Amino acid sequence: MQPPIHFYFDFLSPFGYFAARQIDDLARRHGRGCDWHAMLLGVSVLKVMGLKPLLDTPLKGDYLARDAARHARREGLALARPLHAPPGITLPAARAFPWLKRHHPDIYKPIARALLDAYWLERRDLDADFVAGTAGRFGVDAAACRAAIDGEGRELLRAAVDESLAKGVFGSPFILIDGEPFWGVETLGLAEDWLRTGGW
Amino acid sequence: MQPPIHFYFDFLSPFGYFAARQIDDLARRHGRGCDWHAMLLGVSVLKVMGLKPLLDTPLKGDYLARDAARHARREGLALARPLHAPPGITLPAARAFPWLKRHHPDIYKPIARALLDAYWLERRDLDADFVAGTAGRFGVDAAACRAAIDGEGRELLRAAVDESLAKGVFGSPFILIDGEPFWGVETLGLAEDWLRTGGW
Repeated sequence: MQPPIHFYFDFLSPFGYFAARQIDDLARRHGRGCDWHAMLLGVSVLKVMGLKPLLDTPLKGDYLARDAARHARREGLALARPLHAPPGITLPAARAFPWLKRHHPDIYKPIARALLDAYWLERRDLDADFVAGTAGRFGVDAAACRAAIDGEGRELLRAAVDESLAKGVFGSPFILIDGEPFWGVETLGLAEDWLRTGGW
Repeated sequence: MQPPIHFYFDFLSPFGYFAARQIDDLARRHGRGCDWHAMLLGVSVLKVMGLKPLLDTPLKGDYLARDAARHARREGLALARPLHAPPGITLPAARAFPWLKRHHPDIYKPIARALLDAYWLERRDLDADFVAGTAGRFGVDAAACRAAIDGEGRELLRAAVDESLAKGVFGSPFILIDGEPFWGVETLGLAEDWLRTGGW
């Protein structure tokens, strides 16, 4: 069995959402598992790269909003969240994520997908109560999850973000295949070529 | 005959170079012409968007250099210019470009391709003498071209850059198909889908 591929995403990135819907199938087609990692664009883009929020960047912001709408249409998704509106609450989901991954490795992805769907298709804020309640519907101890968001999850996320930056991850989605980086939902095809051919 | 597609590039962008090698064939496969436009990333990225030069942006710079090398390998190109080195001289080529397009519309693209090859494959600086000499090899009056670089070409480029910004163009390559924008060499496949289907 070859090592898993690594998939990095931020809950508040529509492109990360589109990739999250496809990445496990893509990995499976090539006999790979897929290890998911929540990251924070606010740390990589704003603090480390020194850039503005992407959607607030002149010209690029308009393009990305249009591009996200185009992807959504292509995927048959009706996004409930206007892309140019201020982002909703997602940090509690990002903090719960590594805790769920550690303590509930068999169901962390379905829970993350449910949270992404709620955020993007139902325009729900991913506040701590909502995140814990969603995890509870999958059989997780909701009170423990709620507590982890301000405790262990917070520490795990901090470490995960540091590790992602050390690996050069700066966007959402970002995929690492045996160390080879692929940034952006547009590169899923290239990533698949890479898996198929073992490099070009 | 449907209207041409519009292709925007900066001579100093490796991704623009990769796209320049493919874009006319892509357009032709769908019965379209292709109208080329030189633009300046230094104006759009630095001045209008307020960002740093891409290759100087932490994390992203390393990724883009690696991605460019990956594209070059895929295309079978041996780039002579290290991507992390300071860029060479390209502004005279950008100024000559709209002058050549206006006065020599039948050969402006072969001249641009020759300049791009010289810059990327032979690591030549595209200074005014080299640009005029290259145009001369295609039958253009080299002295007139040399003069235009500091005259009419400069004005035409300024107007072309303003127009590109008004159309929302901010990167290289950038393609407009009936007003629909495609940014980056990764989107050539999407652009081709768009041409094939007339939208999704």
